[in-house]
Amino acid sequence: MPEFDPQRPLADLRELAELTGGEGGARRLAWSDDWARAREWLLAKIEQTGATVERDAAGNLWATKPGESDEVLVVGSHIDAVPHGGWLDGALGIAAALECLRAHDGKVTLKLVDWADEEGARFGRSLLGSSAAAGTLDPDAVRTLTDAQGTTLPDALKAHGVDLDAMGEATLDGIDAYLELHIEQGPRLEEAGKPAAAVIGCYGVERHAIAFTGRASHAGSTPMDLRHDAFLAAAKFGLAARDSAIARGGVATIGTVKAEPGIPTIINERCEVTLDQRAFTPEQLRDMLADVKAAADRIAAEEGVEVEWTRIWQIDPVPFDEHLVELAAQAVAETTGDEAPRLPSGALHDCAEVARVLPAVMVFSSSTGGVSHSPVEDTPEEDLLVALRAFGRLYELASAGITSRP
Amino acid sequence: MPEFDPQRPLADLRELAELTGGEGGARRLAWSDDWARAREWLLAKIEQTGATVERDAAGNLWATKPGESDEVLVVGSHIDAVPHGGWLDGALGIAAALECLRAHDGKVTLKLVDWADEEGARFGRSLLGSSAAAGTLDPDAVRTLTDAQGTTLPDALKAHGVDLDAMGEATLDGIDAYLELHIEQGPRLEEAGKPAAAVIGCYGVERHAIAFTGRASHAGSTPMDLRHDAFLAAAKFGLAARDSAIARGGVATIGTVKAEPGIPTIINERCEVTLDQRAFTPEQLRDMLADVKAAADRIAAEEGVEVEWTRIWQIDPVPFDEHLVELAAQAVAETTGDEAPRLPSGALHDCAEVARVLPAVMVFSSSTGGVSHSPVEDTPEEDLLVALRAFGRLYELASAGITSRP
Repeated sequence: MPEFDPQRPLADLRELAELTGGEGGARRLAWSDDWARAREWLLAKIEQTGATVERDAAGNLWATKPGESDEVLVVGSHIDAVPHGGWLDGALGIAAALECLRAHDGKVTLKLVDWADEEGARFGRSLLGSSAAAGTLDPDAVRTLTDAQGTTLPDALKAHGVDLDAMGEATLDGIDAYLELHIEQGPRLEEAGKPAAAVIGCYGVERHAIAFTGRASHAGSTPMDLRHDAFLAAAKFGLAARDSAIARGGVATIGTVKAEPGIPTIINERCEVTLDQRAFTPEQLRDMLADVKAAADRIAAEEGVEVEWTRIWQIDPVPFDEHLVELAAQAVAETTGDEAPRLPSGALHDCAEVARVLPAVMVFSSSTGGVSHSPVEDTPEEDLLVALRAFGRLYELASAGITSRP
Repeated sequence: MPEFDPQRPLADLRELAELTGGEGGARRLAWSDDWARAREWLLAKIEQTGATVERDAAGNLWATKPGESDEVLVVGSHIDAVPHGGWLDGALGIAAALECLRAHDGKVTLKLVDWADEEGARFGRSLLGSSAAAGTLDPDAVRTLTDAQGTTLPDALKAHGVDLDAMGEATLDGIDAYLELHIEQGPRLEEAGKPAAAVIGCYGVERHAIAFTGRASHAGSTPMDLRHDAFLAAAKFGLAARDSAIARGGVATIGTVKAEPGIPTIINERCEVTLDQRAFTPEQLRDMLADVKAAADRIAAEEGVEVEWTRIWQIDPVPFDEHLVELAAQAVAETTGDEAPRLPSGALHDCAEVARVLPAVMVFSSSTGGVSHSPVEDTPEEDLLVALRAFGRLYELASAGITSRP
C-alpha cells in the first residue's frame, strides 16, 4: 500500500483552488451550489480511494475504509469557506484526510469527515455540523437565523436535504480518536520561524456588548471638566481590556464600535463596543472578565457615564487529549528534527466540538502574515509539506496507538 | 418713550414658540416655509414698532428706526433654528432686539437684523447671511451643497428670492457697533450660579479627520504583541487630545468614529475619527494642534499603525471689541449687583462674522444643563429676565457710547 505522500494533497489543493477559487478567493459557501460542486469534486476523489460514502443527518460527509480491528480513527476538516476566503482554511485538512484514506494500512477503521458549515458565514452560526454530531446544537437557537437575502437556515438546509430537527441524529458514537490539520490563521508560527505545531486545545471565549452612556453636548461650549464623553470612556475601556489580556496571557479585542450621535461638533452621548476575550484556561478567562468589569465600573465613575453589559456569547476553553497532543508533538518533532511548538488555538475549530466527546487533536501549519479569511491567505510550500508530513506521521502514530491500547 | 421691558420679549418668545414650536421642538429651518412663517410673525412685530424694513441681497432682514445722529447701532440675532431645536437659540436675541426697537430713544439710528441661515442645518454651512455681509462668503465654496433631498443651496435660496452670486452685495458699511444676546449653549454659567455674562469673543476652531490604519487579523489567533489595532490607536489619540485641551485651556472633541471592519471577531484595520479643537487664542490653538500631531506620531510608532490627517475646517479665534466687552460687563454687573463673568464662546455666532469688520459684542444668558439644539433647551425665567435687562442696559450704554465718541 502507498505511503502518505504530501505532494498529492498539495496537488489536490491546487486543483480545488482552480475549480472553486480564483482572483476573488474561495467560492465554497456552505449550503450553496458552489459548495455542492466542491463536495462533488471531493466525492470523486474519495471514490478513487475505494472508500464508501455516507452523509449523516447533519449534512456531514463520511468516507469509510474498514480495518481489521473495531477501532475507528477519524481524520477530517471542512471544505466550506467564507466568501472571498483562502485556498487553505478547511481545504488543507480535507486534502490531508484524503491522503490518509489513500495511505490507509487496513488495521484500524479509518473515516474521513467533511463537516458541514464550519464557517457559519451565511447564517452566523459556526461549527454547525460538528456541534450537531457532538450533541451541543440546539435547533431552536438557530431556527430563526436568516441570511442577507432573508432565506432562513431551515430552508437553506432543506434545499440540501437536511432537516434541522433531525440534525441531532448525527453522532460521534463508536469513534476512538479524531485528528485535524489546519492552518494557524495567526502569526505565531511564522514569527517563531516554525512550519508546524501541535495544538493543545481551543481558547474559551467571553463575548460582550458594552454600552457607555454619557451626555451629548456642544463640542465648543462644553468645558472639558463638565463633559460626560461616552467615546472617551470606551477608549479607556479598550485600553484596559488590552492591559488585562496581556497581564493574564489571553487576548482581547474591541471589534464593533458605534459612537452616537457621531458628528464632529457634538460630544458622543453613547458608545457601544463589542469585547471578545479569549484564553486557554477557565481561570484566565474568569480573571480577564473580572478585570474588565472592574475597569468599566472605575471608568464609569471617573467619566460620569453609565455602563451596561450584554453577554453575546460564551464558550469554555476546550483542552485537547493529552496523549494525542503528545503524539502530535512527536510527529512534528520527528518531521522537523526540532522540538515541536505547542500552542492553543485562538480560533475555534470543529475539533473543539469533537474534543468535548472523545480524544481529539490538531496540527497547525504556519500562516503567512497570519492572514486568513482572505484571497491572499497563504502558507509557504515548504511549511505546507512539513505540516502534511507531520500530520501523516500523526495518523500513523495514532493508528498504532489505538490498536495498542490496553 | 417706553423703557426696555424684559417681560415683553419673554412674551414674544412664548408666542413664537406657540407658533413654530411644540413637542417636537422648533420648526424654523432656514429657507423653509416654516422659517418664512416665523419671519412673517417677526415682520408684524416690527411693524408695530414703526420701524422700516428691507431685506438685503443675502436674505438678511433689516428693520430701521432713524436717529438724530448719523451713528448706526445694530442689535440682532437669527430666527432660524435647527430641526427639533429649542425655543431660545437665536430667538432670544431677536426678541431682545425687537424690544430695543420699542425702547429706541431716537438718538442714534437703530437697526434690528435677523441674519439668514445662522444654523446651516439644511446645507451644512453656518453663518451664511452674516458671512455674506461680512465679505467672507465664497459662493463657489457653497454652490454645490445639497440638502438631504438633493436640493442645491442655490435653488433653495432662489425659492426665497436670494441669488447666491449677488449675496456679496450685502454689507456692514456704515454700522458703528453690533450687539447680540444669546443663550450660552453650555453649562458654565449654570455651574457658576450666574444668570448672565459678557462674552469676550469666539473660540477659533481646528477640525481634522484622522485615519489610523493598522492590520485586520483574527481576534482569537493573533497574540496581543503582534497586533496593529487601529481602534486602540484612535482610543489613545482621543485621550491624548483631551489631555492637551486641558493643559492648554481649550476644548477638544472626538465626534465621528468609524472603525472598520467593525465586527466582533476581527481586529480593526482602520479607524477614522474627527477631532474638533477650539481655543480662544491663536497660540493655544497652535499648541493644541502641535500636541496632537506629535501624539499621533508617537501613537502610530507605538502601535505599528499609519496615520493620515485631512483638514476639514479652520477658523481663527475672533476676539470681541474691548470697549464693548467693558460695556457688556458693566451692564451685567449693574443688573446683577455682582461682578460680571467674562467668557469666550465655544460655539460660533453671527457676531463672530460681524466682529471681523466692526466693533461687536455679545451677552450670554445661562443654559439649563448646557443643553441646546434640542426641544428641552431652556433657561430659568429669572435668568432670562436678568440677561434681557442686562442687554437692554448694554443697548443704552452702547448707544450713549457711540454718540460720545471723540
